[in-house]
Order: sequence, then C-alpha cells, then structure tokens
Amino acid sequence: MEVKLPKGFQLATASAGFKKAERKDLSLAVSDVPAVAAGVFTTNAFKAAPVLVGQEIIAGGAPVRAVLVNTGQANACTGDEGLANCRKTMELIAENFGISSHEVLPASTGVIGAQLKMDLWQRAMPSLRADLGKSSTEEFAKSIMTTDSFPKFVSHEIELAGGKITLTGFAKGAGMICPNMATMIALVLCDVKIGTEEWQGLFIRAVGKSFNRATVDGDTSTNDTLYGLANGVSGVEVTAKDIPLLEQSLVDLLKKLAYMLVQDGEGATKVMHIKVRGAKRDAEAELIARTVGHSPLVKTAMYGKDANWGRIVAAVGRSGANFDPAKVRVSICGVEVFANEQPTNCDFDALLKEPLQGRDIEILITVGEEHGRYSLMASDLTHEYVSINADYRS
Amino acid sequence: MEVKLPKGFQLATASAGFKKAERKDLSLAVSDVPAVAAGVFTTNAFKAAPVLVGQEIIAGGAPVRAVLVNTGQANACTGDEGLANCRKTMELIAENFGISSHEVLPASTGVIGAQLKMDLWQRAMPSLRADLGKSSTEEFAKSIMTTDSFPKFVSHEIELAGGKITLTGFAKGAGMICPNMATMIALVLCDVKIGTEEWQGLFIRAVGKSFNRATVDGDTSTNDTLYGLANGVSGVEVTAKDIPLLEQSLVDLLKKLAYMLVQDGEGATKVMHIKVRGAKRDAEAELIARTVGHSPLVKTAMYGKDANWGRIVAAVGRSGANFDPAKVRVSICGVEVFANEQPTNCDFDALLKEPLQGRDIEILITVGEEHGRYSLMASDLTHEYVSINADYRS
Repeated sequence: MEVKLPKGFQLATASAGFKKAERKDLSLAVSDVPAVAAGVFTTNAFKAAPVLVGQEIIAGGAPVRAVLVNTGQANACTGDEGLANCRKTMELIAENFGISSHEVLPASTGVIGAQLKMDLWQRAMPSLRADLGKSSTEEFAKSIMTTDSFPKFVSHEIELAGGKITLTGFAKGAGMICPNMATMIALVLCDVKIGTEEWQGLFIRAVGKSFNRATVDGDTSTNDTLYGLANGVSGVEVTAKDIPLLEQSLVDLLKKLAYMLVQDGEGATKVMHIKVRGAKRDAEAELIARTVGHSPLVKTAMYGKDANWGRIVAAVGRSGANFDPAKVRVSICGVEVFANEQPTNCDFDALLKEPLQGRDIEILITVGEEHGRYSLMASDLTHEYVSINADYRS
Repeated sequence: MEVKLPKGFQLATASAGFKKAERKDLSLAVSDVPAVAAGVFTTNAFKAAPVLVGQEIIAGGAPVRAVLVNTGQANACTGDEGLANCRKTMELIAENFGISSHEVLPASTGVIGAQLKMDLWQRAMPSLRADLGKSSTEEFAKSIMTTDSFPKFVSHEIELAGGKITLTGFAKGAGMICPNMATMIALVLCDVKIGTEEWQGLFIRAVGKSFNRATVDGDTSTNDTLYGLANGVSGVEVTAKDIPLLEQSLVDLLKKLAYMLVQDGEGATKVMHIKVRGAKRDAEAELIARTVGHSPLVKTAMYGKDANWGRIVAAVGRSGANFDPAKVRVSICGVEVFANEQPTNCDFDALLKEPLQGRDIEILITVGEEHGRYSLMASDLTHEYVSINADYRS
C-alpha cells in the first residue's frame, strides 16, 4: 500500500553520522508554500532545546516552511549552548533551502546531555539539499527511526465538501513500555486549507484521544513532539461542516501511529488493550488502567503468555483508585477470570492458551456500575527490552 | 556468623509439596509462652486471606504463640473459601502443637487466586510436628524463600538496663524491583518483656524508616506482612530508657533485611541508593526518589553499567514534583554530572567506569536549598528479572 505525500510537500534525508552505524539520521520535510502549523509538546520540566524553540514558533502562530528532525542526539539538558546549537541548525536549513530560519520547526531524539556535533551538521547539508524531493514517505519514516524496528507512517485521503485532501502521518519511538521512555516524535502533513486556530485545536483534541491513550503521554520524555503542517496546496478549503470529518480522520490516523508505537515498544511482542469501565470518574479509571499497563509483573506475564490474572487484580488493588473491591470483575480476551472477590469457576488456563498466543490482548476491568471509563494500549516487557536499554549508549 | 534465636522460641519446617520442586515450603515459629505481637500489613484493596485474619488477631491485642508461613500459594483473591481455608490451617497447627487456633498468626506467599491445597496441609502436619525445635534459623530463613536466591536473616544482641536480649529477623521477597511485586513476608522474634502497645508502636515507627524506604512499601502486594513477637523469656523487662536503644536496633535490623531484599531483587545486580535533598517537602523528595527508582530506563542503564545520567534527569523532570529546574544537581557515586541545566565539564564516562562496576550505586539529587529529603534503595532491571517473571507459573 502506497503512503502518499500531500500536495506541495517534499522530503529529504541524509546520513550525517550522528550515530555509529552508517544510516540515515537527518530528515527534512519542506512545504512549497508557507503552511499553518500545530505543535504538541512534552510537559517534562526539563524540555529539550528543540522543544523550547519549537514551542516559541508555534505560540507565535506564523506559518512555517519545514520540519527538521535528527536522531542520535536529543539536545536535551544541554543549557544555553544547546539552544544556540538548535538555532544554528535552523539557520543551516535556511541558508541551504532558501527559507527563513524562523520557518523551520526543529525536533531531536537520541541520547540526552551531549551537545550537537555541529561540524557533522555542516558537512551533511549538501547531501540533504541534493536529496530534496527524492526521498519517499517510506525513506523519511525510516530515517527518523532510532530503536524502532519498523517505519511508522500512514496516509488518509478525505473527501471534504470542496474536494479531496490528503493527510499523512509519520512517527518514531519504540521506547513505549513505560511513559518515561517515550522520546516520541510525530509529524502530520496535510494539503488542506485551514486557519491556524482551527488546525491547532484539531491537534489538541485529537492527541487526547490517541497518543495520550497509548502510554505515550505528553508529560514524559524531554523531547516528545508532534508537529502538524497544513499548506493548502490542494486548494480545498475546510468548511465548518468538514471539521468533524477531518477531526475523526486525524484521530484515526494518530491512533494508527500510536498502535504502531506500542506494537514496536522496545522488544515488545504484545499490545494490551486495557479497558476500565464502571468507575466513579474517568480519572479513577485512568489511574487503574495506567497502574495495570505499567506493572512489570503484568507485562512479563503477558510476555510469558501466562494467564496470571492475580497480578492484574493486585495492580488494580494498589492503584489508589476509589472503588468497592466486591464489585470488581476482570476478563482477559473475553474470558471472565475474577468476580465477587474470587476466581470464576472456569479453566482459564485452558480457555486462554490460544488467545494469549496472539499479539492483541484485551483486558477488561469493571470496577462498579458508574460511568467513568478509560482505555489504554500498553506493551509487554521482554528480554529484548532489557538488552536494548542496557546497551543503548554502548 | 551464627544467627541466634531469641530465648523461648522453636522453629519447624517441612516440605508439604505446594510447589513443584521438592523443597521446604511450610514454616512455623513457636514461642514456648504467650508472646506480645505486632503486625504491619499491605494496604492493597485486595488483601489476602491470611492478611485479613492476621490483622484481626493483631487488632485484638491478645498474646500469640506461633507464626505460620507457607510459600507456593498466596491465598489471595480467594474469597470466603480462602478465608475458611486460612482458618483451617490455623486449626491444624492448634491441634498438632497444643495451642489455640487464635494464637496462630498466618502468612502466605505465592501465586494469587488458587485455593490452598488442604490435603497437602493435612499430610504435612506429622513431619512439621516432628521437626519442632530441630530447624535452625538458616533452615527457617530458607524455607520461607520463593524466588529469593539467598536466605535473609539477621540477629542482634542488645544490652538493655535489665540485661541482654536477642532480636532476630527473617524476611523473604525477591520481587522488589517495583513496589507492585513485593510479596514480602518478614518476621522478627525477640525475648524481651514488653507491653503490647509499646511493641506495636516500635514496629510502626521502624517500618517507616526501613522497609518503606526500599521500594517495599506497604500499599503493594496483596500479601505483604511483617510480624513481630516478643515473649519475655529473657526475663529482661524494657524500661522507658531502653526504648530508644531497642528502637534503633530494630530499625537497623529491618534496614539490613530491606537491603538484602533489594540486593536479591529478582535478577538484580545493583542496589541504587537514591538520595534526594533540598526539596520543598519530604513528600516532594519522595516523589522524585520513587520516580527515579522505578524508571525502567534508569534501572536498565544501571544494569548496563552505563552512566546515562540523562535518564535520571528526565525522570526527575517528569516526577510531578515542584522544583526549579535551574537548581537541580545530580551526582553519581560522588561525581557531579549535571548542574545549571547542563552537563558538568567532566569526563563522567571515564570517572564512573570503575564505580559502576560495583554493587552499590549512590545517586544524589539536589533540587534546591530547602529541607525536604528522602532516601530510597532500589534494584536494577535485568534479563534475569524478565525470565523469572515471564516463567513464574509455568
């Protein structure tokens, strides 16, 4: 399936040598004309230099021309020198691509604390420039990868009142097993004609329904960034009636990317779909879902294809949420295993043997009869996860 | 070094066959005379049957004669049948050891959700009875182990005003990497003569300074239990002046056991000593320490002997604690790696290469100039951890 690029965008990638391996690590998306921009960023107290700079540009509300992504170096916890370096990279792009430096949105991912290698940036410019318009959506998606095992990109064509538009999304980030490791970067390009406020509003709402429900929550790493660019090159102007359709399409697109991030959680073999129902408030349901989704014991049990539901119940019990234990019921892949404070009368090991072989595991937790609910996607915890993260820098 | 048993206590162990492997899984400590009892329990909303029964006995304040521990089956999430079974095990001990069933404090650890195998309990009684007084402190410490790799027991002799007393502690629990997995059981025996309220007060204060600072916090598993028995057989009566000495000795003893628990964290190779200083309140410092101590990224970096301090800073930043990022300083094993929002000017990789080979890693985090502080011991996250927990039931 071809993943289309919206009209009026060009991609470029290059190998700057930020990482040891000889692979692409510098990526640029350029809009032929100024584009309306949205941005959603980490709420970590230590924000990476490109996050600070990107926030400033988005807050200004002026149109942009490009998004610049590097892997290998996060440019986080790098102080004033890091900020100055970030601005220099934007100037390099400005000089080489004939745009203004304040029209470049920066994003970085990689090891925290090291300063950018500016000589390598300088040296990479000719090949990046030469590649403009030559990289495919797949090559771009690959070049923003770090520990990801597959590229994450998807595209929707939407029929609005005024005609057809294209919405294309890219994401990177495989450290999704626990929210503290999600150095996620995502980019959505669109050729629709839309106002800045409307475009930014779409993103803020859509993130709450997609990425924030995949343990990729905003208050996570120092670098989490989602940019959205709409350049209007399709000639199709959004009307008020189009907004619900466009918003649903954006939510669906971000959900697909979020699913891919969890599926590719570092070393992950499973995607748990944790659904909490019947809580007093949504926030209580969220607390339970996150406690279960982050429990190393639940995660390792899923990896081991083990229907060890006691670990799920124990996580619910220690979540701190307010509920009546006597009303709690737990089902795994449709098999009710716990109710009335005791195991149900079924051979859950036999019933779940087959379902636990699959990738997608549904965990339904009902904690009462009220209306609070939350859904969360979470990955399992594997040997490979430990290998990836114990050896990340070495 | 011999670990002494206080006067007037006898130990017994047996193989009941709760676990597949042929090993000891049933343990009993008996006091020759009624002993004053203290108990500290999990605050998980789903409390195991022996926790509910033990809480009832401790709350009653009556003296007890024995502590009964089984491994292999947690008797948690087992409903009314689990409670009835727990009481039956106490009756079995009563019949076989000539004491009353309400003088027996129960504790269980193992897989959640399965009902106790009462036939195996019945069958084990003759050998448990025959062993009374024959098991050593080491054999007792070994027989309460589950995934522990070494027995955890320690003894203090204390010279009080009225003479010498002995304080001996046992603990089990290797799932300490994250608080949700700590199915910890600990037992302290003492031959001092002391009142119930004084004895219970000592335990409540001492736990806050020891176990609760080792990520073995009370609101954790369904089974966490610490029992303390004082039988007065030394003939030495505690005076008001002795209390500080006895309390300090108890804190030291519990700290030693807590250290052993972290050291033996499932698959652990490191003990991180995370010290947070200068916070606005102790609770803020605790929030930071726990966020760092539970971060899978920090844990895997320590396992990999990798001075990847950016992960520590990122965890501090996402902890939700209230502090000024500009004032944060981080040292690892005495080497300051981060200050003024940027890396310090040192070759931290070279300086930390040697210290990171060791077992004990000090992480000092200063977040301001105020008086809030907290210390936490935490283990690393290893391949072995995943193996142990993915394969626990199978």
